[in-house]
This record gives sequence, C-alpha cells and structure tokens, in this order.
Amino acid sequence: MTTAAASPLLELISHERGFLLTGHEHPDGDCVGAQVALYHLLRQLGKDVRILNPDPLSRQFDFLQAHTPFTSYRRGDVLPRHDVVILLDCAELGRLNDLGVALRELGSTIAVIDHHVGSEAGDGAVHFVDSTAPATGALVFELYEHLRQPLSAAAAEGVFLSLVSDTGWFRYSNTDARVLSLAATLVEAGVDPSRTYDRLFRRNDRESVDLLAASLARCGFSLENRFAYACMDKLLMERAARLGFDTDPVLDPLRSVDTVEVVALLKERFDGSIKLSLRAKGDVDVQAIAAAFGGGGHRKAAGAVIEAPMSQALRAVEERVRQALATE
Amino acid sequence: MTTAAASPLLELISHERGFLLTGHEHPDGDCVGAQVALYHLLRQLGKDVRILNPDPLSRQFDFLQAHTPFTSYRRGDVLPRHDVVILLDCAELGRLNDLGVALRELGSTIAVIDHHVGSEAGDGAVHFVDSTAPATGALVFELYEHLRQPLSAAAAEGVFLSLVSDTGWFRYSNTDARVLSLAATLVEAGVDPSRTYDRLFRRNDRESVDLLAASLARCGFSLENRFAYACMDKLLMERAARLGFDTDPVLDPLRSVDTVEVVALLKERFDGSIKLSLRAKGDVDVQAIAAAFGGGGHRKAAGAVIEAPMSQALRAVEERVRQALATE
Repeated sequence: MTTAAASPLLELISHERGFLLTGHEHPDGDCVGAQVALYHLLRQLGKDVRILNPDPLSRQFDFLQAHTPFTSYRRGDVLPRHDVVILLDCAELGRLNDLGVALRELGSTIAVIDHHVGSEAGDGAVHFVDSTAPATGALVFELYEHLRQPLSAAAAEGVFLSLVSDTGWFRYSNTDARVLSLAATLVEAGVDPSRTYDRLFRRNDRESVDLLAASLARCGFSLENRFAYACMDKLLMERAARLGFDTDPVLDPLRSVDTVEVVALLKERFDGSIKLSLRAKGDVDVQAIAAAFGGGGHRKAAGAVIEAPMSQALRAVEERVRQALATE
Repeated sequence: MTTAAASPLLELISHERGFLLTGHEHPDGDCVGAQVALYHLLRQLGKDVRILNPDPLSRQFDFLQAHTPFTSYRRGDVLPRHDVVILLDCAELGRLNDLGVALRELGSTIAVIDHHVGSEAGDGAVHFVDSTAPATGALVFELYEHLRQPLSAAAAEGVFLSLVSDTGWFRYSNTDARVLSLAATLVEAGVDPSRTYDRLFRRNDRESVDLLAASLARCGFSLENRFAYACMDKLLMERAARLGFDTDPVLDPLRSVDTVEVVALLKERFDGSIKLSLRAKGDVDVQAIAAAFGGGGHRKAAGAVIEAPMSQALRAVEERVRQALATE
C-alpha cells in the first residue's frame, strides 16, 4: 500500500474540521475497532469527532467505552453537525438502516475506509480501500504511519480488536507475517492480548454452557460427513437472545471434525424464517451457496435468510452443499 | 537472553558429534516442536541426530513426520549410539519413564534446554535454561541466531508449534510483543498459521462433538459461580481414549463464563482414581491447590491424581478451591 492510495483521504482530513464516524448495522469488532483508532487519530489532529452507529455497541465491546465515546442513531434523532462522514468497514449507506437514509437526505460528503472487494464503487466521494488488508483497522493504522502520528494505547487496542476479529484470533488464512508483525507493534503500544481475549470471549453467562451443550446435541452430519449442521429452534434462539449468546462457538466443534468441509448453522427467527450461516473449511465456495438463497458474504463465510420451516430449509441447504461438493 | 547463557551448550554442540534428542513422557507440542527445530539445526551442522521419546508421537502431531523422523523407546530396546543426550522441555530423567532409567544406567552426558523454573537444578551437566522464554522452541530458535544458521521451513514449523502450544494460540498471558514478532519471523520462513491450526485442532472424529456435548451436559458450578467443573466418568473416558479426544475443549466453555475463576476437569481413570486438571482464570494459584493433592504445575494450570471416587474427589477439590478463593 502506497501513500498514493491514502492521499485523497489524507487531504480531506487535513482540510476539514468536523468528522462523523460510522459503519454498518450491528457493527462488528473490525468496524468498532477501526472507529476507535480513527477517533483518536482525528482528536490528536485537533478535529471535532463523533462516532455514531446505526446500532448500539454490543456488550462484547463495551470495554472500549473506557476511552472512546460511542453513540447510536434512532429514527428522528437530530444528526450532529459535521463536514464529512467516514464509513468504516462498509461502503454503502444502504447498510446503515435509518441512519443511512438520514445521511443520504442530508447530502453529506462521504468518505470510505474499507477492505472489502469492490468498495471503491460504493457511496464514497473519497475512498481508502485495500482489499488485501486483513482488516479495516489495519488501514487506519496505515493512516497513523502516513501522518507520523503516535499510536496511543487506546488506538492500539482498537486496531488490535480489528485485527483479531477479522483474522479469527490469528487462525484464518489471512494471518500472514504482516498481521503478526502489526500485532507485535500493537502489544508494544500497550495492548494486553490475554486480557483482551478474556474481555471479548470470557464474559458469558453460566447458562451459555447449557445452551452450547443443547445446540451441539442438535447437530448432525451428512454427505459422507463432509457436511455438518446445527439447528437452533425458536426456543434456543430466545435463550440465546436473552443471554447475548454468540453462536460462533457452536460452529467451532463442528468445524473441528476431520472430514467436514462445510458447516451450517440454521437459526429460527421470531417470524419463523431461518437465518443461515455457512462456513467453509476446505476449498468449497460457500458464498455461491448463500447466493442461491439470495444471500452473500465471502468464499469462506457467508449467510442468507430462508423463508421456509427448519426441516425444509435444512434439506434445501443440504442439496446445494451436495452440488457444490460434487463439482469440486 | 545473552549468548553467555547459551555458550556452554553451543560449545558442547561444536565439540560433539552424535546427539540423542528426547523429552518428557507424552511429549506435548512445545517438546516435539523444539525437537524438530533442534534436529534440523544439528543436521545442518553435519551432526548425527536421532529423536527418541519415552512415548510415540501423538496423532495430533503426526504431520511433523513429513520432514522429521520420530522414534520412541520400549523397555529392552537397544539405545542408539550417541555422545550427548539433550533433554527438551524438561530437566529430569525421572520424567522419561523406562527411557530415563536406561539413560541413567548408560551414564550418558545430559544437556538440558528448558523454560521451566528450576530446571538448572535438574539432571543436566550442561543447561540452556531461561524461565522467561515463552516456550522451549523459542530457546532453540535462539540457538539458530547465535550460530547464524538459516531456519528451514521445517524448523520454523517446529518453533511455531512450540510457540502456539505454550501460549494457547497467542491467548495466554505470556503472549508478548516478542512472541508475536517471532511468530511473524516464522511465517516469513514458511509457516502457514491457518493450515497449522487445521492440522492441530481440526482433525477430530465426528463422535468428538457428541462427547463434547455429553461432557458439557455433566458440568456444574458452585461457590457463587466462581468455580466450574466437569466430570468425565469411565464410560466417557473410554470413548475419549478410543477417539484420541483432547479434553481441553471441555474446559474452554467453562472458562468463558464471566464469574468463573477456577475450572476443574475430573477424569475417572481405569483404576478408579481421578485425574484432576485445574485452570485459573483470575489470580488464584491453582498450583497450590494441586499440591494439596500431591500434584503440581504452574500458577494458572496444574494437575494431580486423587485416589477417591468421583463425588468424593469433587467435594475435596471444591473445598480446597473454596479456601483459595477465600484467602484471595
């Protein structure tokens, strides 16, 4: 990544004063981590900054509030004054629900910082997009380097959160030498990896253990054990919602099975539709499977919503997986 | 770590010709990873090298055999000729079962490479011990640096295995900037983190999912949810043994509960005794608890064997944990 790619954004930052940082609905670790890092960079540069998201900060990330103020938008709220809106970890106002509508009406200048393929074609008038970056937070770190600004412990925590969120705590295939070297730099700047892990993943309710056991007991295998699935019905999902239970740990034991190439989690929603999450272990492109149900995502992780009862949805998914495995 | 600490060992390496590399019984990832790295270093230096362990390589690590030959000792075997025995990740022949007895009888010169506290006082005539090192493999990496030897992809894989084994894949409190920076160097030398993760942790039998669910269903909480435990009876343990099931994933969901400070896994052995594993999340010293049952370990991870039926063993452990939590 050269300065060239970042320079339109750097120019915008140097000329403007008021910045509104936002991102996609249900902001994940990369999105909020990148916001933390950018918030502190802009503050260091003497700018006015506000973070305003389409949804409140999830409990998992509440520890960030010790050093960074997060706000969320509700329809009808008056938008804070700003010169520029910076979208982080997404490129389209359509992913910001009511906040996206309000920003579009206002006609604000939009800048985009993102690492997703095709984000140059989004709603940004100015982009800093690099689809080879492991996380959006890593791009914000590059801005610190371009501007030769010191990285505070708070900003380092933000970049670290981005990095571990989008590399699956250094387990995904995007974990390269650059990622580990950046992580080392962030630890030098004050991040405590072990403490961060505990804060992110070890603050569950004790009932979450029962829920995990119950969900695993409802799992199944088919297609010569190349496909594994877990079905969480409305009752389980109600318990999960009440606990703020992250359903990812349900997929992990399934993924750990030798023969498994595709893992599916089917979650029954309140309206009876099924939220499908797919993960690939081998070379199967689960994005293509999700697309068949009108969904999307990445090659290795994708999702969709299926308007059908659980058993019917499962059969339909299984059939698509069967086809994908056959053409491999 | 200065060259000074390594120099007696470096001297021994330069003067001798035949090396027998070994380590503790049931060699773990750090032990076998360090052996891989040292094997290739000594080969590069033109030495005769053999790896001979008290137990066979576990299935989890069998991928190392693609580049490194492992052998294991059975009572009565003739020991291969050697000038020096190097103990890795331990310091006492007493931890090598029958192999330790045979080596003691032979009166071989013993060298020790280890990162455990007190290993200078072990059976080594020569030591390279540093208890601040995150893993024994990291010490072998230092030998490469001292000798300015290039690190092959195979050796890098060994050091990486050591590092991820003893830092819990970069989650434990010993994960510092030095660890992450070394990991970056190893990836540059050819390690594929994602592939390594899959090989280590994603080759389970499908029955392992049932076993995990069944084990989690048998867990419990007490002492105001500060203590969590799982009991695996003989039946579960027989299934676990048959599958080569790593019981660590049982502890992880328990550890993820907010209030939990101590986690215990009680495994019923064939002779009816209970193998206890303890993990601390907060500041409780579980080594002291294990010591009360004649066991040992580290502050954060320790174990013991209790000669009592399951329910009685659980009550005794709970009582010790209660005392430890009270004096905190």
